[in-house]
Amino acid sequence: MRSLTSQFTIHNSLFIIFHLFFLGVVMTIPKTMKTAVLHTYNHPLTIEEQPVPKPGPSEVLIQMAYAPINPSDLSSLEGRYANPKPLPNTPGMEGSGTVVAAGKGLLPRLWLGRRVACVAPAGRGGTWAEYLATKAQVCAPLRANITLEQGAMMFVNPLSAWAMLDIALTENHKAIVSTAAASALGRMMLRLGQRMNLPIIHVVRRQEQVDLLQSMGAEHVLISSKPDYESKLKACCQKLGATLAFDAIAGSTTFQLAEALPKGGKVVVYGGLSQEPSVIDPRKLIFEQKSVTGFWLSAWQRKTSLLKALRVVGKVQKLLGSDLETAVSAHIPLTNINQGVEQYKNNMTDGKILLQLNN
Amino acid sequence: MRSLTSQFTIHNSLFIIFHLFFLGVVMTIPKTMKTAVLHTYNHPLTIEEQPVPKPGPSEVLIQMAYAPINPSDLSSLEGRYANPKPLPNTPGMEGSGTVVAAGKGLLPRLWLGRRVACVAPAGRGGTWAEYLATKAQVCAPLRANITLEQGAMMFVNPLSAWAMLDIALTENHKAIVSTAAASALGRMMLRLGQRMNLPIIHVVRRQEQVDLLQSMGAEHVLISSKPDYESKLKACCQKLGATLAFDAIAGSTTFQLAEALPKGGKVVVYGGLSQEPSVIDPRKLIFEQKSVTGFWLSAWQRKTSLLKALRVVGKVQKLLGSDLETAVSAHIPLTNINQGVEQYKNNMTDGKILLQLNN
Repeated sequence: MRSLTSQFTIHNSLFIIFHLFFLGVVMTIPKTMKTAVLHTYNHPLTIEEQPVPKPGPSEVLIQMAYAPINPSDLSSLEGRYANPKPLPNTPGMEGSGTVVAAGKGLLPRLWLGRRVACVAPAGRGGTWAEYLATKAQVCAPLRANITLEQGAMMFVNPLSAWAMLDIALTENHKAIVSTAAASALGRMMLRLGQRMNLPIIHVVRRQEQVDLLQSMGAEHVLISSKPDYESKLKACCQKLGATLAFDAIAGSTTFQLAEALPKGGKVVVYGGLSQEPSVIDPRKLIFEQKSVTGFWLSAWQRKTSLLKALRVVGKVQKLLGSDLETAVSAHIPLTNINQGVEQYKNNMTDGKILLQLNN
Repeated sequence: MRSLTSQFTIHNSLFIIFHLFFLGVVMTIPKTMKTAVLHTYNHPLTIEEQPVPKPGPSEVLIQMAYAPINPSDLSSLEGRYANPKPLPNTPGMEGSGTVVAAGKGLLPRLWLGRRVACVAPAGRGGTWAEYLATKAQVCAPLRANITLEQGAMMFVNPLSAWAMLDIALTENHKAIVSTAAASALGRMMLRLGQRMNLPIIHVVRRQEQVDLLQSMGAEHVLISSKPDYESKLKACCQKLGATLAFDAIAGSTTFQLAEALPKGGKVVVYGGLSQEPSVIDPRKLIFEQKSVTGFWLSAWQRKTSLLKALRVVGKVQKLLGSDLETAVSAHIPLTNINQGVEQYKNNMTDGKILLQLNN
């Protein structure tokens, strides 16, 4: 509650100044904006001029600064993500910017003029545009020391990393397995695991990813293409008591993880990078009481109380400059979006591609 | 506790009579017995003459009467069941007979002279033999009105059916899906479901199985090979609120069940009749919070208190003549075991093959 209270105090003292100031700024909002548009799944995006949206009740209008390309965005471009928005649509799950107009309601007016991290609304709009109208409750005002670059990547990966480690600790797992462990998310899990004293077995595909994670202090890193991978993974799970595995890949990876975990082990699938269905030996389910479930940040948030969510967002912001900092490999103007998507697909380990939306 | 107490009362009054009587019977136990022996997985069994085992501490020696061929026995013959016994071994999970000798301990002496349902010990011995030594605690004395035929099939199927319905009710599922629903187990689930007012969607492969289940009063029966099967299953799950599916088949059946269940649905795999690994779309796990787990009677029993297990065995015995009665398609002498196995493989719906072991 402390951080919430202090936000309200700051707000009270500055409300009138902001309000007057932004009455002026509102006037400068243009009628149209540049936005990326997806017309057909698996086809290049087009850049189009569209009307700047009006914020509805409980909504804010954000002049966007940055938006990342996330793996979940790639799934959306292929039509494989949950509840796909009707085509044509503007992609982009998360981003950052400044609130320049407020719809009806207290929260929108509280956020007016503030730098925020934001999430696109369900079913319409996206962050890959110069302006975004979205619910004020899916925006988080950024602390002064958080850059708009880091703020743009605050929700999807840092919150996911936090939520997954939270699940591991809440369910009393002694150690966990992390796949695609050199990804931005995988590296955040590594840093959080170190902070929370939770041993992690990191599974990667290449030697340079081993080097990268070891340079960050990782102790247990395995390469999945090595011939002795499965026996090593099993031995390591036994030794550390790893009874939980986070699976970003699905396909045969789910099978291997379920084989390796000790009795009662749990595979939590959170991505389908292999684009193949998860496979599992029924004997592992029956005779060894193993299970396969899924993790989705939106579902985790829905069953997490608002108070806990606010606390977590506060903690995540504190760590954004350290444990939860995301490496950025390139800043790309919105007009080069297709090039950015290709670049990210070809190398997800180097860092995020960040779209510059109003610079 | 009531049934346990009454057992003790009966015991006290008859203990000396039984004891004296069986001192005589013990003398007539032969030195050797006929037993089925598996030397190589997926090869015919041989009938061999072996020494009659001696009951160890806490064990009883049972002169066997009947033993069924269960699907789990078929898995054992193929080396696909949990914790396979070293080869050569005697197969057979469950059966019935009369306790003719007791090892050290109170319980073995209590069971002496009684007709019992029994389970083979872990790691050695099996019920497909004229005599079996096993722990007294995995034997259940049969009520006077239970035949040795029905008693021979008391543990695996009736207890499994009970346990699965118990899981459904405990977890508050409004309805469930049952696959391989015309099997002995499937039919028990149907009868128990009717008694417990739990709607069941029965999935079978052939029209005559539909007729059979409908003649027993089943309302929702679907044929999995029909072209509209998947859409019908989904509609039926939605209508009845079926959020739990018991999967005896694995392979693509797991996939179809996970597709059909509403959000949050749970597939519980308890058999692998397809001999293929379970497959599941990761999006169902991630975006729809579905899960895949397993059911194994042994594991269920381990986490169930002894008191509850005794109560359940009591209830199951009460229903053995009605809801939990198993249809028997043939009585076969032990010497014809290979013929019996083939016969059962070719038609599991007609009823159980019961081995006659000392008749």
